[in-house]
Amino acid sequence: MIEKNVYLDNAAATRMDERVLEAMTPYFFETYPVATSDFGYSLGIEAREALEYARDEIAHYIGASGEEFIFTSGSTESSNLAVKGVALALGEKKGRHIIVSAIDDFPVIHSAGSRALEKQGFSVTYLDVDHEGLVNLDRLRDSITDKTILVSIQHANQEIGTIQDIETIGRICSKKGVLFHTDATHTFTRVPLDFKKVKVDLITVSPHTIHGPKGIGGLFIRKETPITKWMDGGFQEFNLRAGLENIPGASGFAKAVELVTPEENERIKVMRDHLIDRVSAEVPDTTLNGHRSKRTPQNANITFHFVEGESITLHLDIRGFSVSTGSACFSRSLEASHVILGVGGDHERAHGSIRFSFGRYNTMEEVDRVVDTIAEVVGELRKISPLAHNKEAQK
Amino acid sequence: MIEKNVYLDNAAATRMDERVLEAMTPYFFETYPVATSDFGYSLGIEAREALEYARDEIAHYIGASGEEFIFTSGSTESSNLAVKGVALALGEKKGRHIIVSAIDDFPVIHSAGSRALEKQGFSVTYLDVDHEGLVNLDRLRDSITDKTILVSIQHANQEIGTIQDIETIGRICSKKGVLFHTDATHTFTRVPLDFKKVKVDLITVSPHTIHGPKGIGGLFIRKETPITKWMDGGFQEFNLRAGLENIPGASGFAKAVELVTPEENERIKVMRDHLIDRVSAEVPDTTLNGHRSKRTPQNANITFHFVEGESITLHLDIRGFSVSTGSACFSRSLEASHVILGVGGDHERAHGSIRFSFGRYNTMEEVDRVVDTIAEVVGELRKISPLAHNKEAQK
Repeated sequence: MIEKNVYLDNAAATRMDERVLEAMTPYFFETYPVATSDFGYSLGIEAREALEYARDEIAHYIGASGEEFIFTSGSTESSNLAVKGVALALGEKKGRHIIVSAIDDFPVIHSAGSRALEKQGFSVTYLDVDHEGLVNLDRLRDSITDKTILVSIQHANQEIGTIQDIETIGRICSKKGVLFHTDATHTFTRVPLDFKKVKVDLITVSPHTIHGPKGIGGLFIRKETPITKWMDGGFQEFNLRAGLENIPGASGFAKAVELVTPEENERIKVMRDHLIDRVSAEVPDTTLNGHRSKRTPQNANITFHFVEGESITLHLDIRGFSVSTGSACFSRSLEASHVILGVGGDHERAHGSIRFSFGRYNTMEEVDRVVDTIAEVVGELRKISPLAHNKEAQK
Repeated sequence: MIEKNVYLDNAAATRMDERVLEAMTPYFFETYPVATSDFGYSLGIEAREALEYARDEIAHYIGASGEEFIFTSGSTESSNLAVKGVALALGEKKGRHIIVSAIDDFPVIHSAGSRALEKQGFSVTYLDVDHEGLVNLDRLRDSITDKTILVSIQHANQEIGTIQDIETIGRICSKKGVLFHTDATHTFTRVPLDFKKVKVDLITVSPHTIHGPKGIGGLFIRKETPITKWMDGGFQEFNLRAGLENIPGASGFAKAVELVTPEENERIKVMRDHLIDRVSAEVPDTTLNGHRSKRTPQNANITFHFVEGESITLHLDIRGFSVSTGSACFSRSLEASHVILGVGGDHERAHGSIRFSFGRYNTMEEVDRVVDTIAEVVGELRKISPLAHNKEAQK
């Protein structure tokens, strides 16, 4: 019997914090109307004030103004709006070339890609990354042409946690007069970002990775960024995103942001390092995927060679540990991860990778237990693995 | 002092039912992971099962199968996907002509309209409505050409509540081989709709009008309907809508649907009729906007001639009643409603219209109080209204 499930997959979706629900509840039952103008009734004005309060809280967190942040339904929509909204605004005026990193998450890759903008005549450059997941900045510089309208490179990777040098990328883009979007879903509040210093025009964020609600996300849009509304309908969100305002969600988002502290981020990082250090020392034939130090505090991604990641997740699951083999977008597929392939891994490595994520509710004791368990599970699996036997035979 | 605010604006956003939050809560704190395939861990499989349970509950409500319903972030997104997804799928193959009703809600009008599809070379026919808000079916028949790919006519209007004859519209479209989308935001569960009988291919729905959560909506998509994914990213929702699955929202949506009963709809209709009857009898110079009987049970929309709607809402607000002058999409604007203009009203009538909406938490006692109050307020306002004085002078 498993007493309590140990969840180590929070890059995908985290347990919500009770204080977040507390922040949302008044907007379910008391201040539930639509946000109205000053010409509306008082409940609607209260609703609008709550929305603006939440907006300001989140915007100010990275030094943006409230007018530079809009709510969306989540990271996926934010990235769709960023990529397609800029394409709609500048495609005819300036050009139809977009640059993305090859290991970016699917909302960016597929918004730009063959089924979306590429189909409409845009050309897309997919920047390779090195074996630690970093984009080559010279290659980026060389790829920008006078037809380039947008560079979209994530702040950190969804699977391997590698943090890109967005400060330099922003400078390169700014110097060349090209807009820069970054998907910060996996870094927002976990890794510092100063909107006043980093020359980034659009930032995708979401609270689902920091114990906030699902169904809400956001997009920072720097003042005067040319972008066309993509979700059509009403005039909400400065007329940049139509749809009934999700005020409970916005309030929960703001609370989730408020609850993340530098101390928590440090505590999470210490757990992550402890796991990486112990696995490296105690389990043979492993590879840490991603960069050792330029890495989100909550992420460890490790390949256990000669075994199937799916077998590991299954055996850990039986023992009460939830870990996963791919990004949230991939979770219903058994395809090899484009990220592990992107950093030079082969299919075997892609299938043998496990992502551990750490959050507010994990403890060091759990980390020790998962390492003990994984050492045991991987040892057992290798005894019956033909791949491991081949390796022995090759020696 | 107002003891309790009487909310009569639920077409815009309703107070959530406590039982809806109860249904959502396990997915905040226990079954919070991403829905995974059978190859995932057990918490993820439980999450997927919860999602599929919610999907089936909602789909079966109108006789559709679970595979014919996808979750979105709300009505606005559903209508964007319906209109633009069909345009993406059939625009090149079949033609670039779309028919909408002139009083449809903004998500449909603006997805088709001049800033979206029309800008991309689609042509849009805006069907006029009669003075009760009904589309002329002969006009519809005549408007369909061999280039027409979609007819999008709402089930009921967001402001005046007029219910269109979607059964006949469906037959017309089906006979001509044209897809039919209907926005049922204001009718779903309140007005019967049988997916097996009505030949409608796409239906926009949302729980925010029936005491469910915000930030979630849905789209019925009949099997084999040609439609292209519009929100790009991961492979969720049968690969028709990317984005992290909002399982708390989906579960709350299903619960909200379950909680609506025919008895409740009847009770709401009786309140609506009582308001309309009393206002007609007791307040002079009023016009009921919309159709008297082909009307959603929760909607009454009345023009009080010679006074400004905004003055009425303000005076009712002071006395503890929340009513509004336009649709949710309009609530931050003082523009004249395109719906009232569409049914032949002038600007004066558009500005003097008040929408009353009824929901689970309203009582007959409240209806009597609001009528007493409005009779008094309108009487007072007319004493100082130059429009009313002009009318007296003309006599």
